[in-house]
Amino acid sequence: MDRKAFQDCYPDMFSHCYGCGRLNERGLKIKSFWEGDESVCTVKPEPYHIGMKGFVYGGFIASVIDCHSTATAAAAAYRREERGMDTDPPLRFVTASLHVDYLKPTPIEGPVELRSRVTEMHERKAVIETDLSVSGTVCAKGMVVAVKIPASMMPDS
Amino acid sequence: MDRKAFQDCYPDMFSHCYGCGRLNERGLKIKSFWEGDESVCTVKPEPYHIGMKGFVYGGFIASVIDCHSTATAAAAAYRREERGMDTDPPLRFVTASLHVDYLKPTPIEGPVELRSRVTEMHERKAVIETDLSVSGTVCAKGMVVAVKIPASMMPDS
Repeated sequence: MDRKAFQDCYPDMFSHCYGCGRLNERGLKIKSFWEGDESVCTVKPEPYHIGMKGFVYGGFIASVIDCHSTATAAAAAYRREERGMDTDPPLRFVTASLHVDYLKPTPIEGPVELRSRVTEMHERKAVIETDLSVSGTVCAKGMVVAVKIPASMMPDS
Repeated sequence: MDRKAFQDCYPDMFSHCYGCGRLNERGLKIKSFWEGDESVCTVKPEPYHIGMKGFVYGGFIASVIDCHSTATAAAAAYRREERGMDTDPPLRFVTASLHVDYLKPTPIEGPVELRSRVTEMHERKAVIETDLSVSGTVCAKGMVVAVKIPASMMPDS
């Protein structure tokens, strides 16, 4: 089983994101993997990522859903082309819209698990739905519409 | 004109948020003010808050829309009761849902301006719509449904 994270296959140009870039030293550096047809990301919030004492702040939840979802869209696009994420040409998606329903407070102790499904996959657009949970309890749900970056905006290598 | 920010009136218990808490030393500490019937927040992203080089990452945008919107909901609730935000009993709102439409890349140079309107205001729920812009160009739009924290969950003082 290949345990290289989706984000570890991004070209350098797309590896500076605060949420998921392996080259952003100040960032969250989330990592996403396939588990069958679901993509999974486990992330540990820092103690200062709180909203109210004891609970994760909403922006952290939105941020990790956002980055994990665009990563999942890219991974699904490679799957659709039946090739690995570390093969050329690179495929990247950006967020057109993000929706988060906050169902209950998310304990800061974590770890926070994101588990996503690709509910729509088109040539240039994907829809990703996510359950965000701690210890098996779903605390938030996300829906991201991600769009493929045009080839003209992609790096040459 | 009273230039005390909404967030500077929060009780200590609600001042630890990474996005807006005046007591969170690691956080963004955003500040929101009324300008007529609009609430306004100006925030300068750090150079490492990028998605792609040169542009703000989506999670930062979602985070500041979230915190500014719940602050606006609280400020509107005090206005509805015709009293200042630094009077008791305190009123605070949390996010039930967050929606962001990313219209175009947001330049990292900023500053980023959020300008919001209260489009629904009920006893226990408010809807806040936001334009997020840089240099007058709207780069994202947000809609937050915020719900009032029950009195039973509020601090005693």
